[in-house]
Amino acid sequence: MRNIAIRLRYDGTRYHGWQIQKEEATVQKEVENALSRITGESVHVTGCGRTDAGVHAERYCANFRTNAFIPTERLPYAINALLPLDICVSAAVAAEDDFNSILSCKRKEYTYRLLNTRIRDPFLENRVWQHPVTLDINVMREAASAFIGTHDFSAVRSVGTETKSSVRTVYYFDITKDHDLIEFKISANGFLYNMARAMVGTVVFTALGKISPDSISSILAAGDRRLSGPTAPACGLYMTYVEYGGPVGEMMES
Amino acid sequence: MRNIAIRLRYDGTRYHGWQIQKEEATVQKEVENALSRITGESVHVTGCGRTDAGVHAERYCANFRTNAFIPTERLPYAINALLPLDICVSAAVAAEDDFNSILSCKRKEYTYRLLNTRIRDPFLENRVWQHPVTLDINVMREAASAFIGTHDFSAVRSVGTETKSSVRTVYYFDITKDHDLIEFKISANGFLYNMARAMVGTVVFTALGKISPDSISSILAAGDRRLSGPTAPACGLYMTYVEYGGPVGEMMES
Repeated sequence: MRNIAIRLRYDGTRYHGWQIQKEEATVQKEVENALSRITGESVHVTGCGRTDAGVHAERYCANFRTNAFIPTERLPYAINALLPLDICVSAAVAAEDDFNSILSCKRKEYTYRLLNTRIRDPFLENRVWQHPVTLDINVMREAASAFIGTHDFSAVRSVGTETKSSVRTVYYFDITKDHDLIEFKISANGFLYNMARAMVGTVVFTALGKISPDSISSILAAGDRRLSGPTAPACGLYMTYVEYGGPVGEMMES
Repeated sequence: MRNIAIRLRYDGTRYHGWQIQKEEATVQKEVENALSRITGESVHVTGCGRTDAGVHAERYCANFRTNAFIPTERLPYAINALLPLDICVSAAVAAEDDFNSILSCKRKEYTYRLLNTRIRDPFLENRVWQHPVTLDINVMREAASAFIGTHDFSAVRSVGTETKSSVRTVYYFDITKDHDLIEFKISANGFLYNMARAMVGTVVFTALGKISPDSISSILAAGDRRLSGPTAPACGLYMTYVEYGGPVGEMMES
């Protein structure tokens, strides 16, 4: 069976995240339905991670196995004709036989977008966290720097998920501002449940003076979710990059 | 009575344009409903122009008269709390007594956005004209230049509208490209019905080789709508600027 990897882009507003659930619309369900129609097989798609309801993806990776013959370069056009307009496949590539979107992933990047104005923007509805109180970038940058490196991230994970270890490595947590739009970019070798949103919420909390930026290290060390800031709303979060080796890596970079 | 001008921003996807119609949702209807609730009066709002169904506005101007006392600087917050999330009032100012959003307007700018790719963008759905065939910017620029100046624009108006004169002055018709996004900016002292969209459709037609860029002048001179290109889809069109003198002019520029 061929192992095919696809790069996806989706507006997550209408979906209950990536992963299939019984009743709710999910991105995985839409993609599997479209691929099953194209291949005539019952296709199972492996995504590079769960995304929460309302979270978006500029670059998401998934893979599936099929016996059907479809020219890989034609696949995006064929599948996009069957997908709803808020999801598209932007590239496809023949992956190595042992490629797995979750297990082969080296690092991921999430971008969080916050509109720092009192007046909302109709064109960014469901696409940003609109925050009316002016936030000091320098305070937030100081707070963000404390997350960089290898730590136990229990203090910024939501309960109800089990993983073997809560130790992760954050490579960068950059904050930039362009007019009223603040962007937080976080790269890590893995993210615990709600970790990106809790990191952003905690950094915003420091700018609001609720906690001190130099208390982040001790909050991380204590590992207590109640000490950090609230989870930022899902609508501001975008998966923006997933790194792999081999042909899938090249597809994700292109 | 005070005469108050407001600057609006709206995603026109859900609306049958600006102007009130009996059954359909329109932007004017939403704004009048919200202002009537705030003032306790039956408020009539004068907009700077009709926009078609699905057309957007980054900067739109409207004015209304009221006896109610509302501090002008508080008005955007009060009205935004009552407006649907795809419309917002971004500024308000006390206008001169004889100010009228249509009659006082000196010039308008429309921006048309075209995504020149074979793969659609879920984040730009209903916000651009997605056009899969690659368009040559230089050919389109040559065609666009023929529209600049004072002409009878009957060749790029839709039938069914009556105006005294079909002579207008186009100040610029600029075309720029940023990655896959092509922007057409047209400024004129007035636009006939569908004129901006027909101008864009005609310029795109030259890039497709359907008509020659140097035939635009004779097409304009002939004044025959059947000789020019098709009307570009509404979803790519944005009203981006309306010029006035006095305090309203300052508000629109800010």
